[in-house]
This record gives sequence, C-alpha cells and structure tokens, in this order.
Amino acid sequence: MKQVAVILSGCGYLDGAEITEAISTLIAIGQQGAAYKIFAPNKDVPETNHLTQTPTGQSRNMMQEAARIARGEVQAIEHLLAHDFDALAFPGGYGAALHLCDFAEKGSAGEIDPHVQRVVMEFHTSGKPIAAICIAPAIMALAFGKAGVNVTIGDDQPTASELEKTGAAHLNCAVERFVVDEKNKIITTPAYMYGTAKPHQVFEGVSRAIRELIRMA
Amino acid sequence: MKQVAVILSGCGYLDGAEITEAISTLIAIGQQGAAYKIFAPNKDVPETNHLTQTPTGQSRNMMQEAARIARGEVQAIEHLLAHDFDALAFPGGYGAALHLCDFAEKGSAGEIDPHVQRVVMEFHTSGKPIAAICIAPAIMALAFGKAGVNVTIGDDQPTASELEKTGAAHLNCAVERFVVDEKNKIITTPAYMYGTAKPHQVFEGVSRAIRELIRMA
Repeated sequence: MKQVAVILSGCGYLDGAEITEAISTLIAIGQQGAAYKIFAPNKDVPETNHLTQTPTGQSRNMMQEAARIARGEVQAIEHLLAHDFDALAFPGGYGAALHLCDFAEKGSAGEIDPHVQRVVMEFHTSGKPIAAICIAPAIMALAFGKAGVNVTIGDDQPTASELEKTGAAHLNCAVERFVVDEKNKIITTPAYMYGTAKPHQVFEGVSRAIRELIRMA
Repeated sequence: MKQVAVILSGCGYLDGAEITEAISTLIAIGQQGAAYKIFAPNKDVPETNHLTQTPTGQSRNMMQEAARIARGEVQAIEHLLAHDFDALAFPGGYGAALHLCDFAEKGSAGEIDPHVQRVVMEFHTSGKPIAAICIAPAIMALAFGKAGVNVTIGDDQPTASELEKTGAAHLNCAVERFVVDEKNKIITTPAYMYGTAKPHQVFEGVSRAIRELIRMA
C-alpha cells in the first residue's frame, strides 16, 4: 500500500489548513487504496476568529489544531522522513502561506520554514511526487526558485504574477482540474483560491490531483 | 434547488463536530445538486486538546469554531426555521452528544438543547426529513422518546442498549451504510462510531445517507 505524508498547518483557513481541502485529501487517499500519516509544525501561531474574521490576539498551536482534523494522529514535522513515504501532500489555507512559508507577507521574496524546506527537498531528490493545493503551490515556487516549476493557483493574476517572480511558471486552471509538472513531479490544484467554490468542486479537483499523485508515486 | 440546514456543534470530534463527517455532509449535498446553510448554537463549551485528548480548562464558542468548517458562513441556531429548508442534517462528534443534547452524560435520561428540540420538531411536523450521523441519532432518540424511532449508531451494543431505553429501536449498520425510518423520515449512518474507520469509508456512508435525505426531501 502506498503511503502519503500530509502536512497540515492547523485547522481553519484563516490561520491554518483549509478544512475541506484537508479532508478531501484524506478521503481521496483512501479512495485510491493508499494510506496516510499527518504531520504539522509544533509551533504557536496567531489565532483568527473565523466568525468575525479578525485576529484575536491569542495564539494556537499548529500541531494541536491539526490534531482536530487528524483525530489525534499527528506527528511533529521533524519526524517526517521522505524515506518512509511514497508521496507528499500539502492542503492549502492561509496557514500554508503564513506559517509553512511566508509568501503571504513577503511574496516572491519569501522563505520556507526550514523543516518544510528539508522535507520538500528530500521528496524531490528521491524522485517522489508532491501535491500542493490552493496557495500551497507558493511553497513549491519558493523551493524551486530560479530552477523553475510549473504550478497553478487558479486564475488570480496578481498572485500568479508574484509567484512567477520566483522563477516558477503559472498556468490558469479551473477548480475541478489540476496541473502537472511531469519533470519535477509536482501536482497542483487551485481549490479555494476560487473563494466562491463549493465543497464538492474542491473535492473534485483535490480528488483528481491526489489520484495523479498516487499514480506517479 | 433543494436547501439543507446543517447543524454543527463546533470543530473537532472531542468537543465539537466531527470534521470528516461535517465536510462529507457538505460535499455530498453539493454532489446531489442541493445547497446548504450552516447553523450552530452561540454557546461557550469546554475545550479539549485533541493532541493530548485532555480537557484544557478553557472554553471555545461553538459558533466561532463551526465558522472554521463553514468558512465564516454560520448563523446562530435561533435563526433556523424549518420553513426555509427542505431537510436537516446533524453531523456527529462528541459535540452532538455533549452540547446539542446531554446523552453523553445522562444517557436515555438526557435532554435536548431547547433550540435543537424546537428545530427537530419543526422539521418533523412539516414532514421534512432529517439525517443524523455518528452519535447524533441520540438526539433523534431523545426527541421521539416513547413514540419511538428506528436508528443506528453502528454496532456498539452498550450505547445501542442505552439508546433503546428512550423508546427507540436500534439496528446494527456498517460504516458505509445507513438506516431509514420511512415513517418518521429519519436517516442515520454510523460514521466514526466505528473509531477505526477511514475517512473514505465515513464519506461513503455519509454520501449515501445524504443522497437518501435529499431524495426524501
């Protein structure tokens, strides 16, 4: 059975992982006959009230919050070794662009969390495929830099232009579709980059991307 | 387009709504060509750390937490009128048995939150179907009492026996299946009452239950 490592950044799209994207990823992995383990950084990050959509001034721990999605079964990202897995998946949400890297604040000048950087490079140099959903393709763009990678974040032109300053090439893509960089084995799908998408549309795009991820693994 | 009201009790199975069950419900509603609105009680409840699985001594607001699943689009349960909808759905999680009713603490002697009781009775007396997932069938059992209702919570015999003391009849059911009480228009599916179920199995059972819910609506 193929094993997929899934990296979450919390639980809730404004300060962590986008929940529909995360759950769609887990459902799709099982539907493809594969298994998963969930990882997250063990780090406190600023909390956003999702009802008022404003910062609370408090913080939440990414790993504790990811445990809500994972039903307790989550490990610190330090324990994630590419050697133990066939593929890697990053659901999106602002957590991916605020805490797994800082693209949300610094754009193409951003940097990747050192643990995330290590994991991405381990999978890449092992020839193992990586799926990145929603804004998580920004992590791929920053990781590959001038070497270049083909990705999609949907059809948001300002964000796509900023992404391309890293050296990445952006392709427009509908919510139910995905983009593959065959050479680098990177699969991306826009999901809630389309803010008015419905959960079943996000599920369709994520399902197709995860099917391709597991096919390539 | 048929409209489904979904009642959440927070975000996370130990103190709120089970996240995979909630997202599976929303995906399935869209896949059936229907739409939804999300409601939750505006009430603070004790918080559980999902990593250590122990109470923190702090509290969280059910509506604010439900907003993480709902991407902000959640209303207080007081605003939910059966008149505006064709069907009602309750994802599970301990939140359903701790805060929407108190079955988790008091078993068959438990009571239903008055707002939830009003909503259930409005849908029932209007002849509109209700789906209840995981432990949420306990709400149905308490609501119907001696009048009786046919439900499933899987194959957990002590819980099933306690449920039956209300006057309900329990039927064993696999995670991918559901049970229908045709007379009362109540559809139930066990989901994470099978604690080792995989997300794609929960999704299958919930999908089938929601398809039946919308067919009956």
